[in-house]
Amino acid sequence: MASSPVKQHKFLLDESEMPTRWYNIVPDLPAPPPPPLHPGTHQPIGPEDLAGLFPMDLIAQEVSTERYIDIPEEVQEVYRLWRPSPLYRAHALEKALGTPARIYYKYEGVSPAGSHKPNTAVPQVFYNAKAGVKKLTTETGAGQWGTALAFACSLFGLECEVWQVGGSYDAKPYRRTLIETFGGTVHRSPSRLTEAGRAFPPDHTGSLGIAISEAVEVAAQREDTKYALGSVLNHVLLHQTVIGEEALLQLAKAGETDVDLVIGCTGGGSNFGGLCFPFLREKMAGRISPEIRAVEPASAPSLTRGEYRYDFGDTAGLTPLMKMHTLGHDFVPDPIHAGGLRYHGMAPLISHVYELGLMTATSVDQTACFDAAVRFARTEGIVPAPEPTHALAIQEALACKETGEEKVIVTALCGHGLLDLAAYESYLRGTMTDSGLSEEDLRTALAAVPTIS
Amino acid sequence: MASSPVKQHKFLLDESEMPTRWYNIVPDLPAPPPPPLHPGTHQPIGPEDLAGLFPMDLIAQEVSTERYIDIPEEVQEVYRLWRPSPLYRAHALEKALGTPARIYYKYEGVSPAGSHKPNTAVPQVFYNAKAGVKKLTTETGAGQWGTALAFACSLFGLECEVWQVGGSYDAKPYRRTLIETFGGTVHRSPSRLTEAGRAFPPDHTGSLGIAISEAVEVAAQREDTKYALGSVLNHVLLHQTVIGEEALLQLAKAGETDVDLVIGCTGGGSNFGGLCFPFLREKMAGRISPEIRAVEPASAPSLTRGEYRYDFGDTAGLTPLMKMHTLGHDFVPDPIHAGGLRYHGMAPLISHVYELGLMTATSVDQTACFDAAVRFARTEGIVPAPEPTHALAIQEALACKETGEEKVIVTALCGHGLLDLAAYESYLRGTMTDSGLSEEDLRTALAAVPTIS
Repeated sequence: MASSPVKQHKFLLDESEMPTRWYNIVPDLPAPPPPPLHPGTHQPIGPEDLAGLFPMDLIAQEVSTERYIDIPEEVQEVYRLWRPSPLYRAHALEKALGTPARIYYKYEGVSPAGSHKPNTAVPQVFYNAKAGVKKLTTETGAGQWGTALAFACSLFGLECEVWQVGGSYDAKPYRRTLIETFGGTVHRSPSRLTEAGRAFPPDHTGSLGIAISEAVEVAAQREDTKYALGSVLNHVLLHQTVIGEEALLQLAKAGETDVDLVIGCTGGGSNFGGLCFPFLREKMAGRISPEIRAVEPASAPSLTRGEYRYDFGDTAGLTPLMKMHTLGHDFVPDPIHAGGLRYHGMAPLISHVYELGLMTATSVDQTACFDAAVRFARTEGIVPAPEPTHALAIQEALACKETGEEKVIVTALCGHGLLDLAAYESYLRGTMTDSGLSEEDLRTALAAVPTIS
Repeated sequence: MASSPVKQHKFLLDESEMPTRWYNIVPDLPAPPPPPLHPGTHQPIGPEDLAGLFPMDLIAQEVSTERYIDIPEEVQEVYRLWRPSPLYRAHALEKALGTPARIYYKYEGVSPAGSHKPNTAVPQVFYNAKAGVKKLTTETGAGQWGTALAFACSLFGLECEVWQVGGSYDAKPYRRTLIETFGGTVHRSPSRLTEAGRAFPPDHTGSLGIAISEAVEVAAQREDTKYALGSVLNHVLLHQTVIGEEALLQLAKAGETDVDLVIGCTGGGSNFGGLCFPFLREKMAGRISPEIRAVEPASAPSLTRGEYRYDFGDTAGLTPLMKMHTLGHDFVPDPIHAGGLRYHGMAPLISHVYELGLMTATSVDQTACFDAAVRFARTEGIVPAPEPTHALAIQEALACKETGEEKVIVTALCGHGLLDLAAYESYLRGTMTDSGLSEEDLRTALAAVPTIS
């Protein structure tokens, strides 16, 4: 209870300091990433192969080799509803842990969807609106991405139609309500509205793979309708780099001249790439020297246990083949609470960066994640979403307590967990379990990956 | 889609600009507020009458006539987790409404509880900790206040025991989970732990009155345990004045030299007093000239339809008698979604200010509130809690569209509605109903108010 010197907690930026360009890491890498291949011919695809699903501006960004891409003023105007997002110094957590480490967390939970997803939903909707598109379709699992896209569509006057994985639709009705509050339409997937959906019984609990197929099928049928994806692709990671660009400016305001560790959770990879790519640029330029570390769930360990091979992005095998760390496109991870990390593959660009040796990766069990999350909530006052509980860096901070090292740690707190309290309930009641991935299940799943000569 | 000039959306303050004093309006009023009376003797109570429930520092603030009271550095340190809170200019909403009005909203949803409640929970816990108290008890309805107190207790190492109204405990399990995540213990009220609770069958849906009685009973029995209240009392309103003090600084940054309307919802009165009292000081000093308006639910209209009389703060009649606008202490408002506004009385200080003619009041039905709330969410990206939906000022902004007046409107957006999505679900499905208060029910309720000679 003793009086203490003023400890600044928030490092904010004025709206005038908000980045006006997205950062494309591709031209800075020592080798270009392998191209996506046509699923039929196994030849590199061209822009025209994607034109049925995405507007040309987004396709151009997907294949761009320009280092910086200007953020349109219309997108900046919407970003300013919540951006620049805060960078916090976790004084209260540090004090509770007794660590000499300095922990900073970049918080994306201030957005309309409560996560980083609107950073890409807004430009995706903007470019579609610019191209005259009237409706966007998408899939959503837990609902974060569907929420983000519905909000962005409401601002630009587009319709938004979301196929939500049946199990989540049934178990998380409030996520659906939030999408509808923002003006979107939600269908339980598998639905009766598509061939892909009708192939399954109506009470089937569904999967992201089925929901993607439904959304793609509807988008492909209509001239004025396109499809939007919330992670994995290059243009999605590009849009998320506003996170890291802001964090670099904010760390400078905090007086930090170097960083020891930049850490983020990885599912499809957009949160991780968004924070880390600008830090990686600075590292490759020799200005800072952090370790850049991805943390994935033990039950979906694509980077740490998957193979780096060409594979499909969806279960049904409709997408182009992408070279990525994969567990096999028909692998279905156990139903952990971090729904956003339950993906069989890793973003091709992050997979490539990992192969180049520019980052590290590790995996963690979910009960350990929630141990950390409750300590975080009781000190910092923010209940993390299940996904960023994987990267709260509490073990690293405790290690610093042992060694006395004053490490500077930057974590990606990509969303709040206020719509995920059932997961906390399970943890607090002691009913949460861990689930790994057996060698046999992994071998079986990888056997389905196509062989590309 | 045309390019537009930069519109600043957020008016932020540095932590160094955070107010370091709370504002006490009492010495600035043209007449002192009537004193609380002992329930037995009907004589004004002294500090010793409250010492069983509250520490002396808080009792001193309750009766203070000092204009400013310093915020302890330990409290400021915790405030800095989320304060200064943002003031937003609602450009997107204004554009959608086509209004020339300039709408600003002071947003308290960034706090650990997602509302303004931690502004007083933190100092209340601090002063109790300073006095050697080991445990705090309280009641909670929907759960906002219990959440705030649990979080504050976790920071200062106190135990927190919350009696939650049975109906809410059953219907809103996630609020309970959030309190537990922050380390609090939650009992369903009526519980078997107290005499007050055992007077009711265990499956009774409970009331705030019963829950207060249970929390007070436990606090009164133990030397190291005290009680905390989340609204109504002078010291609670005092702590909330950080909201208005910040908003005044932020409006100046926005370049506004006067304000036409300051509007907030009122239940017990702490959100309204917190925003409005500093504006009222400026108005009484002749520096600005806003109308200051309270909005209450049509089903609990204490200011607009209640009587200004001495009445009890709780249903059982255990508290001191306070002169306030009341509907009668055993009046139970209909179960509207804005649980935080379902109180039979108004804070004595706000009642006094209203009697002095320094503010106005009106009431509104809940479906009209949610009409406004959905328009707000789809443009500004924040889903308001049911309480502040009463004061979104959309009707006022539309009136400006008719008259062409460029009015400056400041609203209190005291919390987010992410844990209240069942209310939005009801609105979107068309199952939400309105409920007023009949003259007969009002007469019956007022007949139970004691007559003080």
